[in-house]
Amino acid sequence: MVTIPSRRKRATIHDVAVEAGVSRGTVSRVVNDEPYVSASARTAIEAAIEKVGYVPNNAARSLVMQRSEAVGFIVHEPHSLFLDDPNIGGILLGANTVLSRSDYQMVSLVIDSQRDTDRVARYLSGGFVDGVIIVSARREDPITRVIEKLRLPAAFVGHPPEQSPLPFVGIDNRASARAITERLMQTGRQRIGMVAAALDRDSGADRLAGFTDALGDRFNPALVARVPLYTFTDGVKGMCALLERDPLIDGVFAASDAVAAGALEALRHAGRSVPGDVGIVGFDDSSWALRTQPHLSTVHQPAFGLGERAAECVLGQLRGEEQPADGILLETPIIWRDSA
Amino acid sequence: MVTIPSRRKRATIHDVAVEAGVSRGTVSRVVNDEPYVSASARTAIEAAIEKVGYVPNNAARSLVMQRSEAVGFIVHEPHSLFLDDPNIGGILLGANTVLSRSDYQMVSLVIDSQRDTDRVARYLSGGFVDGVIIVSARREDPITRVIEKLRLPAAFVGHPPEQSPLPFVGIDNRASARAITERLMQTGRQRIGMVAAALDRDSGADRLAGFTDALGDRFNPALVARVPLYTFTDGVKGMCALLERDPLIDGVFAASDAVAAGALEALRHAGRSVPGDVGIVGFDDSSWALRTQPHLSTVHQPAFGLGERAAECVLGQLRGEEQPADGILLETPIIWRDSA
Repeated sequence: MVTIPSRRKRATIHDVAVEAGVSRGTVSRVVNDEPYVSASARTAIEAAIEKVGYVPNNAARSLVMQRSEAVGFIVHEPHSLFLDDPNIGGILLGANTVLSRSDYQMVSLVIDSQRDTDRVARYLSGGFVDGVIIVSARREDPITRVIEKLRLPAAFVGHPPEQSPLPFVGIDNRASARAITERLMQTGRQRIGMVAAALDRDSGADRLAGFTDALGDRFNPALVARVPLYTFTDGVKGMCALLERDPLIDGVFAASDAVAAGALEALRHAGRSVPGDVGIVGFDDSSWALRTQPHLSTVHQPAFGLGERAAECVLGQLRGEEQPADGILLETPIIWRDSA
Repeated sequence: MVTIPSRRKRATIHDVAVEAGVSRGTVSRVVNDEPYVSASARTAIEAAIEKVGYVPNNAARSLVMQRSEAVGFIVHEPHSLFLDDPNIGGILLGANTVLSRSDYQMVSLVIDSQRDTDRVARYLSGGFVDGVIIVSARREDPITRVIEKLRLPAAFVGHPPEQSPLPFVGIDNRASARAITERLMQTGRQRIGMVAAALDRDSGADRLAGFTDALGDRFNPALVARVPLYTFTDGVKGMCALLERDPLIDGVFAASDAVAAGALEALRHAGRSVPGDVGIVGFDDSSWALRTQPHLSTVHQPAFGLGERAAECVLGQLRGEEQPADGILLETPIIWRDSA
């Protein structure tokens, strides 16, 4: 009886109960083939199911049976980034903490290939989850389309695809990048560059925009090294490129702490001291920040809090509450340590 | 119609089909309330369902509808370790790669509290997954009991609880620890200690046993610092304890690369050079190993391969194939770099 629904909005047990003029418990007994339902109630409920187009799914069945429901947590990352991203673990645990408190089972779904994308889209269509939290959505993503089509309660961590009506929880990457770059400028650095990563995503593009904002007239496009991912390895490559373009570079904004750690490695190999010769700032305040030598000055990204708020947003939708249309932005304090 | 089964072995669509003398497809049509089934076939199937005690679940329904099925991936770790453990990501991606190839949806379930444990046990009982991969099982774990009770196809990564009949994929921690300690001894170190972590788990206990084996008569119990977790922070603490007990210590086996990285930090603070004053070896060959200064000599743990083999083991059980009763151990080459 689980089918892939094509309706815009799923009918619920509640709709059936209202239509048939009976309690949800009675509908539940019919749906679950339990005894003690009068023939007339059964007939009315069957007619109501037909009329409102109710399709039982596991989640609905769980609801009426008062068993735990499930919310999907979708990590949409290329292989290497899933291993490297220090925020995902925090977001995941934050979301799980809030969902667990409301007896929801969080099921985390990894997307690592086109095949994964297609299969996860089918899984969402199949009614295995009541809602979804999505980390790192992409534009023109079949997952996003399925969520919009099914009207699944959902929240994005980070900006959702453009023109998506779906709510999100995030940080202001542009303002945060501007603030840390300004702070770096205040230390007296003269030749400031950036290792800019993940420019195909809002977070990456916004961090570069904030850097550009802060430097204003002093912005030198030659001192931006563009790398694909927020990774240590890309940090090494990006820093090597900057050193080649300007051996006298004395300040660097790395697009993430992992990128900053890679940049530190490249500077060490090149015989430059940090912060003596070059000041470096990162982004995330992840576990990387205290493991580099020197410890990183960086932007604190509230990973656990992002997961908590995204879960609260999905639970709110499941309870039928209105959600803010324009997203929730969390604070991102600057943490100043020793690398700049 | 989803109920928590108390039967030792779940009846399948196949059992119903055999009992009713019809095809699985016909059973599927009845179970899914589809048309084009004769009244006599329907009656026979309903009687067969009653007789064999068949309880439809999502997975079975997915199977007959030729939609993707699901396999659970259970990470049973305390909070901080989930964030720190560099192997989990590799195991997860390895398992996902194999399951995806067979069109199985991997659903990852985080266990971070007693509430999580109880709810995940209910989730498994509810038929939401066809099989389970478990990382870091604990003794007397309700999850393990549920899996055994339901006879869910399962594979452990790492040793399963004692006397469990369930198959596992792992490494020989004791032999690997012995091998890397012997290699460290061959560099001429005289006062060799260990930062031993996670002694409540087989992996932790086995690594200490291998260290003890290698040193033989030279083993000095005072030079073992015991710490709770395989983390950077515990590595710092453990190394500080060892330096207090023997300021002349010149060799250290750290129970993981993260622990080794923490130990390096403690030695740096204490003004000791590595490998000049102290040689250090780690365990895992994780992303940590190339991010420390100097890079770590360590035991390579094939995280991705462990995930792949565990998934293959579960898929084999789902196909009804016999699995090896005594577990699968993967190779763990020693990777010698600069820290010893």
